[in-house]
Amino acid sequence: MRATKFIMTKREGGEHSPEELASFISGYLAGEIPDYQVAAWLMAVCWRGMTGPETAALTEAMASSGDRIDLSGLPHPVDKHSTGGVGDKTSLVLAPLLAACGATVAKMSGRGLGHTGGTIDKLESIAGFRSSLSDREFLEQARSVGVVIAGQSKELAPADGLFYALRDATATVGSVPLIASSVMSKKLAGGARSIVLDVKVGSGAFMKTLAEARELARTMMAIGAQAGRRMRAVLSAMEEPLGLAIGNALEVREAVTCLQGEGPTDLRALCLTLASQVLAASGIARGEAEIARALDSGLAFERLERWIAAQGGDPTSLANLDLAPDQTLVRAPRAGVLSALDALELGQAVRVLGGGRDAKTDPIDLGVGVLLQAKVGDPVAAGEPVATLYHRGGHGLEEALRSVRRALSVADASAPKPLILELLET
Amino acid sequence: MRATKFIMTKREGGEHSPEELASFISGYLAGEIPDYQVAAWLMAVCWRGMTGPETAALTEAMASSGDRIDLSGLPHPVDKHSTGGVGDKTSLVLAPLLAACGATVAKMSGRGLGHTGGTIDKLESIAGFRSSLSDREFLEQARSVGVVIAGQSKELAPADGLFYALRDATATVGSVPLIASSVMSKKLAGGARSIVLDVKVGSGAFMKTLAEARELARTMMAIGAQAGRRMRAVLSAMEEPLGLAIGNALEVREAVTCLQGEGPTDLRALCLTLASQVLAASGIARGEAEIARALDSGLAFERLERWIAAQGGDPTSLANLDLAPDQTLVRAPRAGVLSALDALELGQAVRVLGGGRDAKTDPIDLGVGVLLQAKVGDPVAAGEPVATLYHRGGHGLEEALRSVRRALSVADASAPKPLILELLET
Repeated sequence: MRATKFIMTKREGGEHSPEELASFISGYLAGEIPDYQVAAWLMAVCWRGMTGPETAALTEAMASSGDRIDLSGLPHPVDKHSTGGVGDKTSLVLAPLLAACGATVAKMSGRGLGHTGGTIDKLESIAGFRSSLSDREFLEQARSVGVVIAGQSKELAPADGLFYALRDATATVGSVPLIASSVMSKKLAGGARSIVLDVKVGSGAFMKTLAEARELARTMMAIGAQAGRRMRAVLSAMEEPLGLAIGNALEVREAVTCLQGEGPTDLRALCLTLASQVLAASGIARGEAEIARALDSGLAFERLERWIAAQGGDPTSLANLDLAPDQTLVRAPRAGVLSALDALELGQAVRVLGGGRDAKTDPIDLGVGVLLQAKVGDPVAAGEPVATLYHRGGHGLEEALRSVRRALSVADASAPKPLILELLET
Repeated sequence: MRATKFIMTKREGGEHSPEELASFISGYLAGEIPDYQVAAWLMAVCWRGMTGPETAALTEAMASSGDRIDLSGLPHPVDKHSTGGVGDKTSLVLAPLLAACGATVAKMSGRGLGHTGGTIDKLESIAGFRSSLSDREFLEQARSVGVVIAGQSKELAPADGLFYALRDATATVGSVPLIASSVMSKKLAGGARSIVLDVKVGSGAFMKTLAEARELARTMMAIGAQAGRRMRAVLSAMEEPLGLAIGNALEVREAVTCLQGEGPTDLRALCLTLASQVLAASGIARGEAEIARALDSGLAFERLERWIAAQGGDPTSLANLDLAPDQTLVRAPRAGVLSALDALELGQAVRVLGGGRDAKTDPIDLGVGVLLQAKVGDPVAAGEPVATLYHRGGHGLEEALRSVRRALSVADASAPKPLILELLET
């Protein structure tokens, strides 16, 4: 293919055919089209955008660039994707909850980068948990337990990995069709038939406004629908962290309380919404009250124990996770109502304590984190503890304390903000 | 410098500081900033444009990336730049003409690429002509003869060469600030104090409309003025070729007739306009009639002979240039008035006959070409010869004949179109 002509087409605002997109992607993967031509094209896409059919064709070409997981034959294979937030442990709650409701959750998941955590990191804070499974183990566990979450043993959408690294280096990450095709290429290769998207909106999220989040959600849903997947989306607020816990082991502990029918109300509410949406898409119609019973009755927790055990983890360790030995309190600077808990700053605090990574291969400290004692809208007294830092000696402590203090605002009055902003169906 | 942040600034429509632009260029030249980041930035510039100060700073950074020719101390160092047209042999006429009028023309020039010819190629069709001169020879001849045109022995604006290759591969050639900075970086390094730009407009030129050409001219003039150069611009039509001759030796022959006070009226008119503009800018005020006397009196031709001789050429060979041995006529398909002579098609015809090159290192046949017998607006009889192809046997002949036939249109009525469209001063 003539890459220069292809780039010119997009530069001039034209539309690529599915065949052109497929040969561009395969030419890039084969090393025939150099990075600099792809980089120029990516910027042209940021400029001119892509039509729905173009975005669907790009996604399909990336999904076809590597392995695909075949989940056909398993009951109700479902999946959830979050665009990334701070304190977002919904996958840990949803996976056993959905399995307890009759669906199958079999997914390959990633590690955290920057200020957001990754599900695999969180799971590895459970003693003995094995994230590396063979294909046979993966599918066998999906069938017998209904839940399996493993690291990426297969090459799902390798073209997306190449694209992502290039986008990161060329300031072309922020483009709705590029974000949507990146997410959906991995979802399509992942094999689930029904998918719910949790698109985060707000200062702690990539999408800062409801309009942007809606556009991204609609674009991803259209790609999925085009590929025959049943799609739902939830737009949820990400100004303050989800729940009270940020940090790998702390988040697992909070997910466990949620699976036992307790825990923070915002986390529980979001999990119930996401679960009811994806179950409805999958043809399992259950109201949120019915799904909540799976939490309150212990059924979902029981499924968590079976899942953890199946992957080599010790379920009894869930009650006694390995947290960092040192704790430091941050107190309210004055009396009033907590009016902001900036998610980015809090995520940053956990990162500098050693709980996040800058590069994919950095080791991380699973025991560190921040545990909030209050949420936005809660009254606080002067000097009352509002957050506890879990740290290891002085490592990153001063910087983390500065971040946490910057994250907090106390005002004379403030109301809690709505969490679920919109539900979208195709 | 953080290249990703720099790219993001332009992506978001922001303005770079001169310091940022200088360190981006030097980082690229040093191999610290990879092609793919520059490629993304180039596309962002196509999208967002650049302000006048940004364009001037980019040009200065590129001009400073290599050698600079020092023409200070020479009387009235002047230069002309054409944006490229078919049959454009004005440099060959202007250089001795301007020298005969008291200015100095000392320039390094390039070879042709694609459908347009290069001055160095044309000069090499003169027996013995040496285009490769030492720095000392170059400056000594500038002083003694007032004219010297050599190939690029110095590295003038090497950053521009790198940029150009990348722009060509990434569909980012067509951007006014990038074109303007590319041209002007070499002009600034070239050392002339007064510069006239011949910006071609029309189907045979890069700029298709007067508005685009005016914008490009204004941008280049602003860059030059910012760098203390006296700038003029002529916007001239490029629908049909300039003059009657296309092809290296044929064009030299036509330039010689012009320098002897004869030759096509459009070529003479454009040369007189360009000369009077750049002389006026340089402080030598002469009307076109006075400059025309240098052509008609033989003074300009005499300067040509001294110039050619100084560079090792045989001035007597100018009357007897080595043309291709075979000629084929193309005749008017019907009686009427010649209404179009498409410059691109005619340039293409010469290229396929062997007179142009696709890659910079291709050898070319200096003797082939097309000589027109009529121009747009001339009446023609059915079967009357309108063009003669100079070729070597069958090499490229069929394709060239098809191009020439496509280039010709005969209508019932047609008027000659104006050649000089606008004169611009800073």
